[in-house]
Amino acid sequence: MKLSRFYMPTLREAPQDAEIASHKFLLRGAFIRKSASGVYTYLPLGYRVVRKIEQIVREEMDRAGAQEILMSAIQPKEIWEASGRWDRFGPEMFKLTDRHDREFCLGPTAEEYFTTLIKDEVKSYKQLPLNLYQIQTKYRDEKRPRFGINRAREFTMKDGYSFDLDREGMEVSYHTMYEAYEKIFNRIGLDYVIVQGDNGAMGGNMSHEFIALSDTGEGVIAFGGDYAATEEKAEVTYTVQDKARVDLTEVTTPGVTTIEELAAFLSVTAKDCLKAVDLMVAGEPVVVFIPGDRTLNMAKLEGYLGVPEHDILPMTTEQIEAMGSVEGFTGPMGIDARIIVDRSVTAMKNVIVGANKKDTHLQGASYGRDFEGEDGGDLLVVEEGDTVPNSDIAYAFRRGIEVGNIFQLGTKYSDALEATVLDENGKAQVIWMGSYGVGITRTVSAVVEQCHDEDGIIWPVSVTPYHVIITVVKNKDEAQMALGESLYNQLLDAGYDVLLDDRAERPGVKFKDRDLIGIPLRITVGKGAAEHRVEYSTRKAMDTVELHADELMARIKTDLEHYDE
Amino acid sequence: MKLSRFYMPTLREAPQDAEIASHKFLLRGAFIRKSASGVYTYLPLGYRVVRKIEQIVREEMDRAGAQEILMSAIQPKEIWEASGRWDRFGPEMFKLTDRHDREFCLGPTAEEYFTTLIKDEVKSYKQLPLNLYQIQTKYRDEKRPRFGINRAREFTMKDGYSFDLDREGMEVSYHTMYEAYEKIFNRIGLDYVIVQGDNGAMGGNMSHEFIALSDTGEGVIAFGGDYAATEEKAEVTYTVQDKARVDLTEVTTPGVTTIEELAAFLSVTAKDCLKAVDLMVAGEPVVVFIPGDRTLNMAKLEGYLGVPEHDILPMTTEQIEAMGSVEGFTGPMGIDARIIVDRSVTAMKNVIVGANKKDTHLQGASYGRDFEGEDGGDLLVVEEGDTVPNSDIAYAFRRGIEVGNIFQLGTKYSDALEATVLDENGKAQVIWMGSYGVGITRTVSAVVEQCHDEDGIIWPVSVTPYHVIITVVKNKDEAQMALGESLYNQLLDAGYDVLLDDRAERPGVKFKDRDLIGIPLRITVGKGAAEHRVEYSTRKAMDTVELHADELMARIKTDLEHYDE
Repeated sequence: MKLSRFYMPTLREAPQDAEIASHKFLLRGAFIRKSASGVYTYLPLGYRVVRKIEQIVREEMDRAGAQEILMSAIQPKEIWEASGRWDRFGPEMFKLTDRHDREFCLGPTAEEYFTTLIKDEVKSYKQLPLNLYQIQTKYRDEKRPRFGINRAREFTMKDGYSFDLDREGMEVSYHTMYEAYEKIFNRIGLDYVIVQGDNGAMGGNMSHEFIALSDTGEGVIAFGGDYAATEEKAEVTYTVQDKARVDLTEVTTPGVTTIEELAAFLSVTAKDCLKAVDLMVAGEPVVVFIPGDRTLNMAKLEGYLGVPEHDILPMTTEQIEAMGSVEGFTGPMGIDARIIVDRSVTAMKNVIVGANKKDTHLQGASYGRDFEGEDGGDLLVVEEGDTVPNSDIAYAFRRGIEVGNIFQLGTKYSDALEATVLDENGKAQVIWMGSYGVGITRTVSAVVEQCHDEDGIIWPVSVTPYHVIITVVKNKDEAQMALGESLYNQLLDAGYDVLLDDRAERPGVKFKDRDLIGIPLRITVGKGAAEHRVEYSTRKAMDTVELHADELMARIKTDLEHYDE
Repeated sequence: MKLSRFYMPTLREAPQDAEIASHKFLLRGAFIRKSASGVYTYLPLGYRVVRKIEQIVREEMDRAGAQEILMSAIQPKEIWEASGRWDRFGPEMFKLTDRHDREFCLGPTAEEYFTTLIKDEVKSYKQLPLNLYQIQTKYRDEKRPRFGINRAREFTMKDGYSFDLDREGMEVSYHTMYEAYEKIFNRIGLDYVIVQGDNGAMGGNMSHEFIALSDTGEGVIAFGGDYAATEEKAEVTYTVQDKARVDLTEVTTPGVTTIEELAAFLSVTAKDCLKAVDLMVAGEPVVVFIPGDRTLNMAKLEGYLGVPEHDILPMTTEQIEAMGSVEGFTGPMGIDARIIVDRSVTAMKNVIVGANKKDTHLQGASYGRDFEGEDGGDLLVVEEGDTVPNSDIAYAFRRGIEVGNIFQLGTKYSDALEATVLDENGKAQVIWMGSYGVGITRTVSAVVEQCHDEDGIIWPVSVTPYHVIITVVKNKDEAQMALGESLYNQLLDAGYDVLLDDRAERPGVKFKDRDLIGIPLRITVGKGAAEHRVEYSTRKAMDTVELHADELMARIKTDLEHYDE
């Protein structure tokens, strides 16, 4: 492609709201344009990168035995109601109504849709295992779309679903996808980790996330030894301390409503106090108790309760009073609410708890003797200083961008939608499913986050929009233009994707654009053109050498082969 | 792909609502599945055909200098309001609201969106001409979706837009696209005609439709000599008859409210009467007069009025009375309404017209003497017996499916959205545009309409999902399976798309499926397998020959090269 005709409106400056490198450089380099909040257009350069990533994903999915289909982006309400997710997704789901008042959503994912597709047509165990996928536009009406295509409301996703006769089959399919995902992200060249994921609204059991490491990532990963998990999921362990129980006594604590104030007032540490979190869960009062020095992990709580985020709200003052307490003094004894405790609370002795009356706490409270509560398992946010399960290795933390996820769904959706097959004995069996996602467009931004410098993007060869860019320094110079065109045609004939910068721009503009758009190999055709001498450099090393034009083809072949190493 | 693992749930019977061959065979052959009214899923076989057509379109667009981008499927309301099409599209447009109450539509087309995209970034005539396209999912909430993917509510379209400095530039871009479209439909192998189109809601000037001929098409084309046009657009000409004018006289016509009754009552022909069509156009009374023996062409009227279909309604009895007439007796004299006449009416003398009072008509009325009315140009539906413009060749009629259309938009959208560039003299000039569409998924159905027999589809090689199918007659027979697998691998290695039917099905089922899905070349591995002898046939000719396996590769190469001839 000749730049004089190419639609590549690069920008000197990125818009103010572009905070991270990928957002800035993808805008400045004319890869993307914003069409509305969280909604983007892919310009010619950007769409080439998207299609290269799609092709890698497609090849690895096909190689792993998955089959590509395309379902519609609009999905009927009924199937989402059957699984209970129509309401569960809440305002994150774009909804619409057709001219006959039938309701649809713009699919944020497609577990229900794929299950519905196969349920009447896969009737026998002989048709299993089956693995279907699509590469398609998805929609989530994010509360705060940001970081460009990293967290957009419209995005391209590969979503796939496996169907098996039993748990063992599902686990085999899951493992095959796990390996295919490793191949995909290895081929793209991302620096990534695989962590145990949080299931969130997906439900089900085992899951993994593929996370591209990046300081600008919105997710935090907790590491230690062989263990890695998202911050939401990372397990917090506790040790039981051997203490003699003391008696329960009431203490007056005037105006002391926070744990910090309480610890200071009584000259103890926050750890010696019990923190109450007063919540309304789907309209019912629930109080969660955790150690005073810790933070409640909402993702873990959602998982335990099995309700979505938007159904969990803080109690109002009135709601606290209605359950028989006073704001700032909630304790686990004598309230009219469901009580859930973090597992570590079940080992607590002699703690200070709210007395459910104004300006009053109780000292010396012990779980099992003075108060009870459902054991909610681990409900804490992991912290600096916590140790990895079954070891004394302290957690380390890094940020990252989730680019892939795989879930063992079990029979959640096939139960809800009644998808069964007949087994060898002619008995109906509910199908076991897995679901597998790759954020195609998010991967574009993750690559840029990992591959850039202050001047622009440094594309890996695997996904670069073009392999080589030839810059003709003076497009009015006949010898330069002739050599530029000749090299351009040679490289095209050899099968490379090539840009020829033949624009009537100042050399400085051309060089700046070249650095910005990040094409791996660069040929500069300048003064030496008459002698067929050119300058040659790579975007990665920025190391210019002078070469004879005849040496280029061999050099380019070798450099492209080794560039991503 | 081995059929034992391939997701190809063929059906013995098509659902009742599948009326035409493409709808039936695409469902039965497991190419598509219905997800909702007018909304389809593409199964593995079907999606391969879609992708092959996309690739042909992409290659020809790129070759013609167009550049591929991807815009979002959701489009903000504001840009549609700027062009006046938000209301104009009416109930055909799917609309939705985001969590912040901002309104969007699911794009039915993208003139406004592309214009908005380039308007702030294309600033100089030097950046023109520019031609951008996308291959994308589009939405129209059709009143009566039918015929499967032929008239669906969600469909894949290639839509492209050209941007030029002036009319001449637009015409050059238009001509380039005209030729690219010929290449596209020639490569696909469709039997098609190119006709002057109706602009409908698009506005603008010159346009052409590419129409695949098919008896099941919803559109009718009127032919004659070199002339071809859609039924909506085909010009109706008239001859002026030399008559002496007679005097105007009132005649009592009790209970005579239709042209047929009137002609019979007065012993004249329908041609001697003036037909009134009483309409409310965007709330205002309009009466259109045409010769009594003809039918008003609503598409032509819409074009003349410049309003959409849903803004044109028949008058109620009350509305007819409000303009000063009586239902069944409307005439062109003395009514309180806008009067529009078909051009042929301007030459009419001595006709019978309604008198705007009950049971009364007027005889001997002449245009220009007794009544006036805006000359609306040709407003008639073409009929058997009409002749092609400037000739005495009678029209012939054929049905067809619109698979492509190209429009010279002029400055309609660039005016509305203020898209200008500076010309050589630094003066702002409104950009001249063209728009170019290919119905990708509709083309799939058009190909099937043209290429099938009673047993199933007969894919052209250009878009076939697979080139060759190998049927192993008995999958338990070791020699047969070994030869089948060996041929399968040989053909894959040679770069062909191959299916191996290794299913444990009866031979009859396999043969029926093979005919149904329409793969061009067929190898049957049966009893002769031990001697490496196979049966070979083509889907088109169904002519079985016995060959030695060693002869196959050469035969397949030759046959594929000539199959589409």
